[in-house]
Amino acid sequence: MKLFDAINPFDSRYYGADEDFYALASPYLSEEAQIKYQIRVEVALLEAFVEIGLLSAKDAPNLDKLEQEIPPSEVYEEERITQHNVRALVNCIKKRLPGKAGAFIHLTATSCDITDTARALSFKEFASRVLVDKALFLLERVISLARTCAGTAQIGRTHGQHAIPTTFGHAMALYVSRIGKRIEKIAAAAEAMPGKISGAVGTYAAQSIVFPGDPKALERAVLGRLGLAIPVSNIASQIVEPEYTADLCYGAISLLSVLANLADDMRHLMRSEIGEIGKIVDQGHVGSSTMPHKVNPVDFENVKSLWKAYMPRMITVFSDQISEHQRDLTNSASGRFVPELLGAVAYAVMRMRKALDRTTIDGEAMKANLNKAMDQFIAEPLYIVFSANGINNGYEIVRDAAKRARDSKRPLADTLSSDPALKKALSGLPAKAADTIKAIIRNPETYIGIAEKTCLEVCGVWEGRIAAIKESVRAFA
Amino acid sequence: MKLFDAINPFDSRYYGADEDFYALASPYLSEEAQIKYQIRVEVALLEAFVEIGLLSAKDAPNLDKLEQEIPPSEVYEEERITQHNVRALVNCIKKRLPGKAGAFIHLTATSCDITDTARALSFKEFASRVLVDKALFLLERVISLARTCAGTAQIGRTHGQHAIPTTFGHAMALYVSRIGKRIEKIAAAAEAMPGKISGAVGTYAAQSIVFPGDPKALERAVLGRLGLAIPVSNIASQIVEPEYTADLCYGAISLLSVLANLADDMRHLMRSEIGEIGKIVDQGHVGSSTMPHKVNPVDFENVKSLWKAYMPRMITVFSDQISEHQRDLTNSASGRFVPELLGAVAYAVMRMRKALDRTTIDGEAMKANLNKAMDQFIAEPLYIVFSANGINNGYEIVRDAAKRARDSKRPLADTLSSDPALKKALSGLPAKAADTIKAIIRNPETYIGIAEKTCLEVCGVWEGRIAAIKESVRAFA
Amino acid sequence: MKLFDAINPFDSRYYGADEDFYALASPYLSEEAQIKYQIRVEVALLEAFVEIGLLSAKDAPNLDKLEQEIPPSEVYEEERITQHNVRALVNCIKKRLPGKAGAFIHLTATSCDITDTARALSFKEFASRVLVDKALFLLERVISLARTCAGTAQIGRTHGQHAIPTTFGHAMALYVSRIGKRIEKIAAAAEAMPGKISGAVGTYAAQSIVFPGDPKALERAVLGRLGLAIPVSNIASQIVEPEYTADLCYGAISLLSVLANLADDMRHLMRSEIGEIGKIVDQGHVGSSTMPHKVNPVDFENVKSLWKAYMPRMITVFSDQISEHQRDLTNSASGRFVPELLGAVAYAVMRMRKALDRTTIDGEAMKANLNKAMDQFIAEPLYIVFSANGINNGYEIVRDAAKRARDSKRPLADTLSSDPALKKALSGLPAKAADTIKAIIRNPETYIGIAEKTCLEVCGVWEGRIAAIKESVRAFA
Amino acid sequence: MKLFDAINPFDSRYYGADEDFYALASPYLSEEAQIKYQIRVEVALLEAFVEIGLLSAKDAPNLDKLEQEIPPSEVYEEERITQHNVRALVNCIKKRLPGKAGAFIHLTATSCDITDTARALSFKEFASRVLVDKALFLLERVISLARTCAGTAQIGRTHGQHAIPTTFGHAMALYVSRIGKRIEKIAAAAEAMPGKISGAVGTYAAQSIVFPGDPKALERAVLGRLGLAIPVSNIASQIVEPEYTADLCYGAISLLSVLANLADDMRHLMRSEIGEIGKIVDQGHVGSSTMPHKVNPVDFENVKSLWKAYMPRMITVFSDQISEHQRDLTNSASGRFVPELLGAVAYAVMRMRKALDRTTIDGEAMKANLNKAMDQFIAEPLYIVFSANGINNGYEIVRDAAKRARDSKRPLADTLSSDPALKKALSGLPAKAADTIKAIIRNPETYIGIAEKTCLEVCGVWEGRIAAIKESVRAFA
Repeated sequence: MKLFDAINPFDSRYYGADEDFYALASPYLSEEAQIKYQIRVEVALLEAFVEIGLLSAKDAPNLDKLEQEIPPSEVYEEERITQHNVRALVNCIKKRLPGKAGAFIHLTATSCDITDTARALSFKEFASRVLVDKALFLLERVISLARTCAGTAQIGRTHGQHAIPTTFGHAMALYVSRIGKRIEKIAAAAEAMPGKISGAVGTYAAQSIVFPGDPKALERAVLGRLGLAIPVSNIASQIVEPEYTADLCYGAISLLSVLANLADDMRHLMRSEIGEIGKIVDQGHVGSSTMPHKVNPVDFENVKSLWKAYMPRMITVFSDQISEHQRDLTNSASGRFVPELLGAVAYAVMRMRKALDRTTIDGEAMKANLNKAMDQFIAEPLYIVFSANGINNGYEIVRDAAKRARDSKRPLADTLSSDPALKKALSGLPAKAADTIKAIIRNPETYIGIAEKTCLEVCGVWEGRIAAIKESVRAFA
Repeated sequence: MKLFDAINPFDSRYYGADEDFYALASPYLSEEAQIKYQIRVEVALLEAFVEIGLLSAKDAPNLDKLEQEIPPSEVYEEERITQHNVRALVNCIKKRLPGKAGAFIHLTATSCDITDTARALSFKEFASRVLVDKALFLLERVISLARTCAGTAQIGRTHGQHAIPTTFGHAMALYVSRIGKRIEKIAAAAEAMPGKISGAVGTYAAQSIVFPGDPKALERAVLGRLGLAIPVSNIASQIVEPEYTADLCYGAISLLSVLANLADDMRHLMRSEIGEIGKIVDQGHVGSSTMPHKVNPVDFENVKSLWKAYMPRMITVFSDQISEHQRDLTNSASGRFVPELLGAVAYAVMRMRKALDRTTIDGEAMKANLNKAMDQFIAEPLYIVFSANGINNGYEIVRDAAKRARDSKRPLADTLSSDPALKKALSGLPAKAADTIKAIIRNPETYIGIAEKTCLEVCGVWEGRIAAIKESVRAFA
Repeated sequence: MKLFDAINPFDSRYYGADEDFYALASPYLSEEAQIKYQIRVEVALLEAFVEIGLLSAKDAPNLDKLEQEIPPSEVYEEERITQHNVRALVNCIKKRLPGKAGAFIHLTATSCDITDTARALSFKEFASRVLVDKALFLLERVISLARTCAGTAQIGRTHGQHAIPTTFGHAMALYVSRIGKRIEKIAAAAEAMPGKISGAVGTYAAQSIVFPGDPKALERAVLGRLGLAIPVSNIASQIVEPEYTADLCYGAISLLSVLANLADDMRHLMRSEIGEIGKIVDQGHVGSSTMPHKVNPVDFENVKSLWKAYMPRMITVFSDQISEHQRDLTNSASGRFVPELLGAVAYAVMRMRKALDRTTIDGEAMKANLNKAMDQFIAEPLYIVFSANGINNGYEIVRDAAKRARDSKRPLADTLSSDPALKKALSGLPAKAADTIKAIIRNPETYIGIAEKTCLEVCGVWEGRIAAIKESVRAFA
Repeated sequence: MKLFDAINPFDSRYYGADEDFYALASPYLSEEAQIKYQIRVEVALLEAFVEIGLLSAKDAPNLDKLEQEIPPSEVYEEERITQHNVRALVNCIKKRLPGKAGAFIHLTATSCDITDTARALSFKEFASRVLVDKALFLLERVISLARTCAGTAQIGRTHGQHAIPTTFGHAMALYVSRIGKRIEKIAAAAEAMPGKISGAVGTYAAQSIVFPGDPKALERAVLGRLGLAIPVSNIASQIVEPEYTADLCYGAISLLSVLANLADDMRHLMRSEIGEIGKIVDQGHVGSSTMPHKVNPVDFENVKSLWKAYMPRMITVFSDQISEHQRDLTNSASGRFVPELLGAVAYAVMRMRKALDRTTIDGEAMKANLNKAMDQFIAEPLYIVFSANGINNGYEIVRDAAKRARDSKRPLADTLSSDPALKKALSGLPAKAADTIKAIIRNPETYIGIAEKTCLEVCGVWEGRIAAIKESVRAFA
């Protein structure tokens, strides 16, 4: 029950009013957390000075307490004077240090050495520990749904029109595959997040003064202490190459698009006229404030809506790939929105998991819709059998017969023995081919090819890959 | 010093940490404010029932206190049970009402009747009272800058290259014109914001039950009480036509683009090599955490950066123009971001005003740059004079001479009497035409056409229109 | 059958392969047309010199033939040498002029004086003569559909769930209102398109040399000849204020969003399970290459898809509002895409009109769906009647009864006399109120409030406004 | 000299009017090419039927000639009748086949099996053979520029303000690293492009009828023949997972952003006041149509402008990740714009290469600007030396002295012996530390840390990776 002062709805509503998600995200993404991460980097830099021998350990005591000791409000107060957020932070740290250490605080670093490194660290930790973790939790749910419904026949829909059958499990397995690949993208981007301690324009000029023998030693020590990787042949200007963040954002947004697709599918399957999925409603819940009977797919709508809100932010991310010369600061505000983006995708992931937990699958309704569709869809196997048996114009024969059936409002199957063209074509088929048709008409839900097998194979593959992703994330998170 | 828990930087940094702006925006845009506006609409509906005579005034006492009495936290707590935000609000109100009034709370309204109306009202009031007001305050500053520098010659720059002279006032007057027109767009869109009380699918069905003689009477009464206009031949589905909000957002974003342009111009004029504008630096301010000498255009960078962050949200606004049938709820999250967008544009407007207040104009530097440019720019008046006096290939003569001058690293003016082609062309000119050229060379900053006059005219026109805008906004805000 | 070499699908497929649309759009929007418009502006400038008396009419003969005489290929060939498109055009014109006129070609103009003016003119003419014209043609179709189905009851759908009834005409009338307002926006933006002849940085410096007494006379003469308005207190840099084009693009894109919404509604109404609208299929048409039975909503899908392709271009338009100082040329490519955008919206408008012409409305299916929905939707009128008659907890009584009915798979109406809570509440109602309920149950499609009346009123209002739009466009197009 | 009928400027201007680029791109990306690719897939399907033994080779003669034989215009004519583009193509092929083969044309395939596979193939081939190839060609140019200028000192610029020195080679090496990584992304995405032959809803239902023993055999045969990989545990609906195309588009657009950044840097370095780079101008070229002296950075402006035009298309790509159920067709138009996007990025890559070829580097100008900057930038090494030698408030001492110097308009270096605070701090330094400062003041361009070394290392690393990319692309292209 927080943050009613906020204007942004993620803050006030999705994050601020959801205690579980708040507890999960705030240590990585809140403004307070961002400041804490910056302190952590400044501390790592001081420790690096100790490590390389320019500062003695006893001159720099209690560094590990600084993160807890400095309240963000103090940093903001100081910023009112300095008008510079990192210098404000440095001042707050410095006054807690003994003189000798005080001279080394922030030494050789430019603000971006601290902020880019802190941000990279927070993104990496949030992406691997929360976003990937929760996305895998969702993926496991989709796999279980796919396995359960692997053989549950459902009419396939293309253009919103009944096509030919598939299984609900097959439809879900496609999401297993799509979500799984996105998670791998995110995990790889998170692992690659780098930092930098190379000074004002990335030349290690200041570092060359203080440690001429090995100007990169400080950077190695700082990043090593923080668990950030150093790319081979690293190079930076004042700022880290913006593509690392862009890749992570792309991974997150393209995952969100997949969730939006799943949300749309579910919304439509829940339409009054389709009714193939339903929703578990708790006592006391309200669907509509004036229509007491309504049960609405609000969770799925919310996920789609978050996509509309956050997907366009890729434009900002692309724009922030551009920074003039060694750096302009036109990402001063825009770059600060990345934590919210990552948080919102994680929220959507968790909301989707909850939505699926509250979704009921109505196999009977699926069967009923499929049977109604049979009126028309046997057109395809008919045409395939005709053509595969050498009837050159099989497609046209069936198309025209389907139109005649439609016009006379009869199921196509009922016209097999009365429609002259169909009758003639059927009579020329080998017995086995004719049996194939008859079997499908008798049992239309069998016309699903290898949908069930494919579904189960995909689930199996991804169960293996989930284990691998967990392993790899554990190694770097 | 607030909102460190927030993840969104507008909340934590631009709005939450700026006490003045916080005081200005929170009564209209915060989550708490949104709930208060909804209470206001529900109360107006109850009062409308009194007005049309279905409820007696004494059965509905103390309605005007409800807005203050109900804390947002109570509504959020209730929403945990109902899972429906408007029903939660209704429950909170209802328990404070006597039984007879309780039966009428929310009666005939669908949730969107309340939320769309509340949102429209908050947008209208914020846009007119804060956004337009502050934008006019900025406009006045730009006008004053333009008037002051109306005749301050400056080299014009196209493609980043020196072109021919203009005046700094003329450049500012163009922003007067552009900003002024955007403000008029915003004011018009704010004034047009409508509400609705027409029920679940916009048919006034429930209203037809309770007040069959005049089903639109309730809507008229509610909107009238709130000061919202009713469009002639109004029609809605569950929701108000989304174009009203889209028009307002477009006005705001297109204003932000103009500010971003101004910010870019200023950033570049402050480049070390150009130095035509400077910045008043307060004691204690820090430009760079490692380069103690730096003075950076951070305010202008911030405005440009806000543009990168908020401009792409137009995609969300366009997406929210689409809502299936009588309404889908896929704007459940996305539609909630409009207050932040409006707030951010207002913040950028105010930041730009502050930035201009802290900007110094260096007329000497402008003159110096212009004089250096003179080496080349007299090419244009030369060619114009040649051609206007019937020299057919005037353009080519001058282009080639300019190249020769450039190659020999001499100012073009210095070659007038030595370059054979120029010499020949000049010798054929009437005396008056030759004098024109000589005058420009003697005093290159006079080659500014009617820049000063145009600048002053534009300022005058907009001073008049500002008065008109203020008048019109006062009438509806 | 053109343009197979093209890569852009609008060129090859929507415009290039549609002879009617090609004939309509190419005179305004093709690359050839853009060059012709530039010739027209250069010619108007020469005529202006004649008009103000600097050039005698007999020295500038046959100006009106230039537009036809100069093939675009010649201009492109010349550009290979000049590497400058306007100078190339000037050269092509100049070699066709006698010497005296040759000296005046392009005189005082900067390239943008020509290109911005030419573009404004082409946009204005295309927008008013084609886009607005065709949009009005579409609007008339939607009005006729709305009038025809003003009383055709249909179940309202919110969240994809059955809500309460409306009429199909009411749903269409909302589009009448939305499309109508967008057309007015576009017409207003087209009318406002300005040109400029104020020279390299907008100061009229060159014009002050050739016509010192009235430097703006040339601009007035040129724009007057072309039929472009001159804003009061006009000001420009090298380029016209970019907001004029932005406003036009916003009008067009926001119209496209409304069409996309209509397209989505239609697609879903055509779903196999809903079937409330159908499609007239010509002999020989193919729905699917493998499923001979399919009839797909391809026209509506196309309109939605064009929205996905063109809506994001607003980002480009906003970006082109920014141009450094008196102008940078970073709109060199991006600004050239506006004709395609306007053309694509016009195409979508025409495609939507065709789609509606081929759409059949199935009132029987609408009635059948509505009747099925009745099982639940009478919950609303029940609750309204209860509350309006002073039953305080009317909402909760009905919500709980609806849940009980749903759980026992019975229509809510069937439980009126058996559900104890409902029974009790009903028994307390006045006779008239009870009759209201009974009437709705007997004839559920009457629960449509004033949907029909509202629909017809809106149609009437817009028939009047169409006439007004036509009148105003005729005046300036 | 083509395509003047086109409206899209890429068609008419960048691709259609550039003979070299036209020759390069049209075989992959033109509408004609797309149709040819579809024929290639249909032919591969027929050959697959031969391969698996359902059709004898002699019944299907001359398949390899079909691609050349069928003109696109014929397919378009046929589409007027069928209103279905793939069925039209099938009809055109079929009439060229003997009866037995005719029955097998397209058999078991849904349209998307053909179109998605054809598109994937064209994207893969264009991306690897043209886009990656040309991007490597550009990368080699940037490497050579970086190597040449590895030690060319230049003032670093942050916020547009002089910061501390770097080298121009270091700045270019950062682009080597950024461009290189983007190329690797594109190559990986191109290699991963898959096809599908799994029927109407991805269940292999039709394939299960014609080849029950191994329904996936046809797909394996077709994709194998075309050189497209089959992902392990492949799954599709009617369409291929849209993320494959999204990843490729993201790679291309994020490369374009890097080019836009490089273009901006170059534009600004060419500003009149900076003048660190220049442009080789051919005889006859025109900079401005009215200012004969102008030389403008039009190539760099064009690249930036293409970014503004094409970057927003990522919104379309994300939108096309969403397709309802087994597929809706709302990507019918939008999905067709991907070839143009890929083509435009390739064009920008080539244009950037040409621009760099025509760019001159002015080392003297760089040195002059750097020397001017020295007035201030020695603030950093001063403060670093103070702090590293234990002066606790080194930063503040230098910041205040820099301000005093600025206020008195003297170079900071000149105040070292006169400013009391500086003098005092300097006097306390060890001799070696004082020497460091003196050396930098004597020779400011030495304050570049390890910029040169880093530059050369990065170039070396990427020369190796270029070889690896070429190798890998050769394997799959």
